[in-house]
Amino acid sequence: MNYTRIYDISMPITLDMPVYKGKPEKKPSIIVESDYSTGNFYESRISMNLHTGTHLDRTLHMVKDGNTIENLSLDRVITPCKVLDLTTAIECISKSNLMKKDIQEGDFLLLKTRNSFEDILEENFIYLDKSGAEYLASKKIKGVGIDALGIERSQPNHETHLQLMKEDIQILEGLRLQDIEEGEYFLFAAPINIAGAEAAPVRAVLLQ
Amino acid sequence: MNYTRIYDISMPITLDMPVYKGKPEKKPSIIVESDYSTGNFYESRISMNLHTGTHLDRTLHMVKDGNTIENLSLDRVITPCKVLDLTTAIECISKSNLMKKDIQEGDFLLLKTRNSFEDILEENFIYLDKSGAEYLASKKIKGVGIDALGIERSQPNHETHLQLMKEDIQILEGLRLQDIEEGEYFLFAAPINIAGAEAAPVRAVLLQ
Repeated sequence: MNYTRIYDISMPITLDMPVYKGKPEKKPSIIVESDYSTGNFYESRISMNLHTGTHLDRTLHMVKDGNTIENLSLDRVITPCKVLDLTTAIECISKSNLMKKDIQEGDFLLLKTRNSFEDILEENFIYLDKSGAEYLASKKIKGVGIDALGIERSQPNHETHLQLMKEDIQILEGLRLQDIEEGEYFLFAAPINIAGAEAAPVRAVLLQ
Repeated sequence: MNYTRIYDISMPITLDMPVYKGKPEKKPSIIVESDYSTGNFYESRISMNLHTGTHLDRTLHMVKDGNTIENLSLDRVITPCKVLDLTTAIECISKSNLMKKDIQEGDFLLLKTRNSFEDILEENFIYLDKSGAEYLASKKIKGVGIDALGIERSQPNHETHLQLMKEDIQILEGLRLQDIEEGEYFLFAAPINIAGAEAAPVRAVLLQ
């Protein structure tokens, strides 16, 4: 393996972390089960929605009888990738934004937006709209990640997820891309293998 | 990145997975919060002890005021590694077993034992004993992983953990190495970044 730098592009999981639309049920809880006040070791437990923090969606999230975490082939998420600088997009990322970029079949794209810099993650975050998702599906990309807790918002029929999932394009949400310049990297985004689950947490890392 | 194969060396997380000493409180629970009987998406939640399945220990697990997950430098767990075949060890891995192997300063070692083949994970699993841990500490290795849910058992003062932790040697537990031959690989074992935690789940992978 040849690389010069490891970048952590994951969100820390904390009690006060930003969560999708600020919903309290999306905040994690961490329970200390043993500590040094009563014994000679420390152990804790986590309880958390699987869409909290950096995570991978599988199609079961939006499609009845969809695929789940344990059937993911790891070469879909351990792969070369391209970070696209889309920080000038104001409201969402549309086909028109993406058409300016070099996108090829089989690419795994990470969309860097204002979300990585501004305190908008819980409310009016930048998302990928239906036209953008249709465009990426037509390009037959391998996967797409975004620095938002959802790849879409306020689209009641989940058009963005469904357009991507029709082509089995992997969806990574909750990335942190503030330190990452546009360019090519190697992505490591294998999720915790929670069998049967529609999503799972990922420690996503880029190698340069 | 040049590699010919990706090996998943993690345990799937399931309701009936083997857990440390078969303790019921170490079994995960997975709760479906929304599904297609009531809406148009599926979401679930996990509640689980942080030592369930494949995970990385930090020194807080055994040392008061020890270090925690968020302070881990990722180059400690994204690193070349060596898999050692120790499948002939009957009860535990001791200094005498390890002295036969080529072990150098800075190595990350994965100990492959009978645990990967036999149904002994919840009871009399093969572990690393104090003499083995002292030997690895004296070699100043970077980390050690094992195909058991604990790197030691039935040592009330946790001598194995403490010997390793004195040298800040990373400890990976719950690996599955049945398909991995002795040799050199590239290890990817970055844990979910649960801030303040003494351990965290890892999707551990080897690249060949």
